[in-house]
Amino acid sequence: MATEYLGIDVGGTNVKMGIVNAESGNITNFYSHDTGSWRATGHFVDNLGDAIAVQLKENPEVKKIGIGVPGLISRDRSTLMEITAIPETDGTPIIPLLKKRFPEHDFFLENDANAAALGEYYFGEEKLPEDYIFVTLGTGVGGAAIIDKLVFKGGGGNAMEPGHMPSANGKVLERNIGKNELLDLANKMRGEFKGETRLPSDGSISTTGLVAAASDGDVLALQIFDVVGTLLGDGLVSMIRILDITTILIGGGLSASFEYIMPAVNRQLKYWLTPYYMKTLDIKRATLANDAGLLGAASLCF
Amino acid sequence: MATEYLGIDVGGTNVKMGIVNAESGNITNFYSHDTGSWRATGHFVDNLGDAIAVQLKENPEVKKIGIGVPGLISRDRSTLMEITAIPETDGTPIIPLLKKRFPEHDFFLENDANAAALGEYYFGEEKLPEDYIFVTLGTGVGGAAIIDKLVFKGGGGNAMEPGHMPSANGKVLERNIGKNELLDLANKMRGEFKGETRLPSDGSISTTGLVAAASDGDVLALQIFDVVGTLLGDGLVSMIRILDITTILIGGGLSASFEYIMPAVNRQLKYWLTPYYMKTLDIKRATLANDAGLLGAASLCF
Repeated sequence: MATEYLGIDVGGTNVKMGIVNAESGNITNFYSHDTGSWRATGHFVDNLGDAIAVQLKENPEVKKIGIGVPGLISRDRSTLMEITAIPETDGTPIIPLLKKRFPEHDFFLENDANAAALGEYYFGEEKLPEDYIFVTLGTGVGGAAIIDKLVFKGGGGNAMEPGHMPSANGKVLERNIGKNELLDLANKMRGEFKGETRLPSDGSISTTGLVAAASDGDVLALQIFDVVGTLLGDGLVSMIRILDITTILIGGGLSASFEYIMPAVNRQLKYWLTPYYMKTLDIKRATLANDAGLLGAASLCF
Repeated sequence: MATEYLGIDVGGTNVKMGIVNAESGNITNFYSHDTGSWRATGHFVDNLGDAIAVQLKENPEVKKIGIGVPGLISRDRSTLMEITAIPETDGTPIIPLLKKRFPEHDFFLENDANAAALGEYYFGEEKLPEDYIFVTLGTGVGGAAIIDKLVFKGGGGNAMEPGHMPSANGKVLERNIGKNELLDLANKMRGEFKGETRLPSDGSISTTGLVAAASDGDVLALQIFDVVGTLLGDGLVSMIRILDITTILIGGGLSASFEYIMPAVNRQLKYWLTPYYMKTLDIKRATLANDAGLLGAASLCF
């Protein structure tokens, strides 16, 4: 029987957990609790501990627990530092607290994007090399780097915030191509566009509408994704030049537009990079989708 | 008696070597040979080996040799990959070759900027933390990151090429603020400048002239360094966001203008970075100057 881990994905809306089969990635005993009601008790970490206790009682064979959290954590992976969605936990030594309550178990804490990136290595559809960059496109632009099959922590422990790199127009990358900014840009470009397009002109362009239009070859939709790809590509070049990593996974909700963003991304990479990088360059979509957070948390136990 | 190492700084013009006292950083038995004549023999690595043999014979107590080279090396630090100034050595497994000739000795190979960065830790004037970014301003903009007192290799082994990050004006950073580009910019700004300045208008502005003018408060010279600082600052923000390292050393020939560049650098960092980074931010000049390469090479032996 394959080893099983308890994976916990702490989000601003829900805390999800489940028993993950280390070989198949199958999730059983899935449980979700709304973050807000645990916060309201004033004892978020205790409530989390209670839920863990239930899981461990039902699954006595599980000895390792991985936890992904949406924010900054201490370099030694013991303490919550800045969890914007649950700020009252900032400074909480969550791992020592849980270890005290569950002394027979091992706990592993990681930032959720880092965990999701690592999850792609162990549970993704494709075999990955031991070094890759993971970038998530969504409301924000998040990221992680895996080096030697380990989460790259950088100096202070919280490496890889690509969304906050200076980009064009005096803005950071995610203020140029985050979901909301993308839609603002789309509606603005729609207003100025003179050609044929099926994109609505009343300011109601949605990301799904944009992707659908692009898949039908809509010229304006493709132009919009070209802007996104250009800015993303330039940002990726900086990451590649700093990290010397040329396998790149793109995840997050906006990665649905992957194939429409990629022509511009590839154009920028070819423009800026030398053969040393280009010969191993490989950019692809992340594969874990909805379960990325939970599987990523479990992958911390490997 | 303190341990001694042989430090070797392979440059495009000269190969310098010397016995380095691990405590004091004093260099004895200094020897320099022009790179070109060794290249002309067609046996560069053999010639280097001969020079090493002489040094080791004269200093039998030395058991470790550190070598810095100006280019890309293999991730396992055994082989020269792309040494632009000595391209005929590309692909040479220099460490196995030397180890075969000197089986009783240990050899350590590193990129020269990486070595110089590490040298600052062991031989610099100031106590450094275990994590810092090193940026050299010169004809190019080079760099290195030290994480946990070790050279950060990234994924492929050749991390930290900040000069090749996309910057403003559709150019990479070093094509904006490398020495020659800085002088082009200075002469261009001189042509457009209407105020009082002591900078010559005949296209003959030099970096020393620029620094001297800035030190006298020349408005145009300060404006020129403001441009450099703005672009450098934005580049540093990207490095900080990716690496989560907030101690930054500035070295290289142009670092003579450090104090005139810094106001703009600091302005950009304050603009882009959050308190998490700002509370530990520390930017200072590198201290090793001329001996950085040789001492850096020796520091690989620690």
